[in-house]
Amino acid sequence: MTRYRLDLAYCGTEFSGYAKQVGLRTVQDELELGLSKALPNRSGTSVPTVVAGRTDTGVHAKHQVVHFDDNTACLNTECVLYKLNRILPSDITAYSLKQVPDDFSARFWASERVYKYRICDCPYPDPLRTADVYNTFRKLDVKKMNKAIRGFTGLHDYSAFVKFRSGSTTIRRLKYFKFKRVHYGKDKGYIVATLKADAFAYNMVRSLVGAATFVGLGKRTTSWMKECLENKTRCGATGPISPRGLTLEHVKYISSPAKARRRMKKVQARRKISYKCT
Amino acid sequence: MTRYRLDLAYCGTEFSGYAKQVGLRTVQDELELGLSKALPNRSGTSVPTVVAGRTDTGVHAKHQVVHFDDNTACLNTECVLYKLNRILPSDITAYSLKQVPDDFSARFWASERVYKYRICDCPYPDPLRTADVYNTFRKLDVKKMNKAIRGFTGLHDYSAFVKFRSGSTTIRRLKYFKFKRVHYGKDKGYIVATLKADAFAYNMVRSLVGAATFVGLGKRTTSWMKECLENKTRCGATGPISPRGLTLEHVKYISSPAKARRRMKKVQARRKISYKCT
Repeated sequence: MTRYRLDLAYCGTEFSGYAKQVGLRTVQDELELGLSKALPNRSGTSVPTVVAGRTDTGVHAKHQVVHFDDNTACLNTECVLYKLNRILPSDITAYSLKQVPDDFSARFWASERVYKYRICDCPYPDPLRTADVYNTFRKLDVKKMNKAIRGFTGLHDYSAFVKFRSGSTTIRRLKYFKFKRVHYGKDKGYIVATLKADAFAYNMVRSLVGAATFVGLGKRTTSWMKECLENKTRCGATGPISPRGLTLEHVKYISSPAKARRRMKKVQARRKISYKCT
Repeated sequence: MTRYRLDLAYCGTEFSGYAKQVGLRTVQDELELGLSKALPNRSGTSVPTVVAGRTDTGVHAKHQVVHFDDNTACLNTECVLYKLNRILPSDITAYSLKQVPDDFSARFWASERVYKYRICDCPYPDPLRTADVYNTFRKLDVKKMNKAIRGFTGLHDYSAFVKFRSGSTTIRRLKYFKFKRVHYGKDKGYIVATLKADAFAYNMVRSLVGAATFVGLGKRTTSWMKECLENKTRCGATGPISPRGLTLEHVKYISSPAKARRRMKKVQARRKISYKCT
């Protein structure tokens, strides 16, 4: 069996998330069905895939990575990619397909995941950006939001901003977290929150951004988020914001397989410790 | 009665064009229904509107203008605008509402209309831009396309690129027409065609862009479009391209009412002459 890496993008609006769910339209279902048709000698048989980041219902991905195995000798990746894109619906696009080492893992070899959350805070939002921009309709104070999240990067237990899942840790190392106002066109713009980490816990990005909007709207003080983080207290205001504004922007991998293997071992060891901490 | 100007934007994907059509969802229907609810003393009664540019099914507008009359004394425009945006569906946004001279015409006082047509020519289009970018999937030669449309600006009879409508002229003065490749993000981009004129004939923008893509794909020579223009011969290749990539970007008005009135008279006189020519 040979392992392949597939880089793709999708608009999450019409999907019930990435991961398979019985009776619901998911990215994984469409992708695995597409692969079973595009790969030679696989017609009809399912092609199990492993993904870098399982996105929630309505969340988009500008760059997502999966891996799968296939036993066709000398697979013509260019041809499979072309066929796959003709089969996939218009809200999924596969960008590249290439052979990778047999122990490559789209999930564990990833060294960084970058998420962006876009918020429009003007009373009259752009109707052409409803798919990937969330609207608060009321002005947000970006300075206050950035003040509230000061000290959030680094290794922390994000219990207050994570939906608990048994067997999963709430401790993560956040590398970057910032809000910035960007403008496009005349009088148009939005606020973009950028978050970078090697991995994120369940609902973590949407909860952190959601809590910051409470500060930006003046409903909470700038010290409130830090208090929540320290007290590990989850409440309504630290719950997740709408998935609409969220996009998985990029998944970064270590180029050297030897380094990636060493890192994977480290990550797995650290996760066990982290799990005990929680 | 007092006249009001309303500036708006909409995503055309789910609309059967701007103008009212029995049994179909149109922007005009949604807008007039919204106005009848948002304006005081008009509950239930229809509010007839006049629009700057009647867009086709699936065509978007980043800036569209309408006018309507209302007899409420001292109308609170800010309040009406706020109410209207709460009533309108998420694919229409009203940006501004203001009182204008009684003889203002959203259609005839407009001095320039700017349309943009976006085309992605890479084999793997961005799934987050499917709403307003048309895909050819095959590479387009922008240089050739610009060469083919050389000399298209100025006063011409665009019969070859216009769907004939009785009572309407095919003679128009095109002020600007150019194709440009723009990039956004990493390895992402599209070609944008910008067209400016005081007014466009029916299907003119989509026909001109569609014909240029035939040249860009190498299916026609660079001199072919000019020949069609001169011979006034309409054929399949000069027919309209998909409406998906088309957006009405801006409607420009003359700031001085006196100048606008003089210009309106001139336009109407010229149209009569133009009509005779056709």
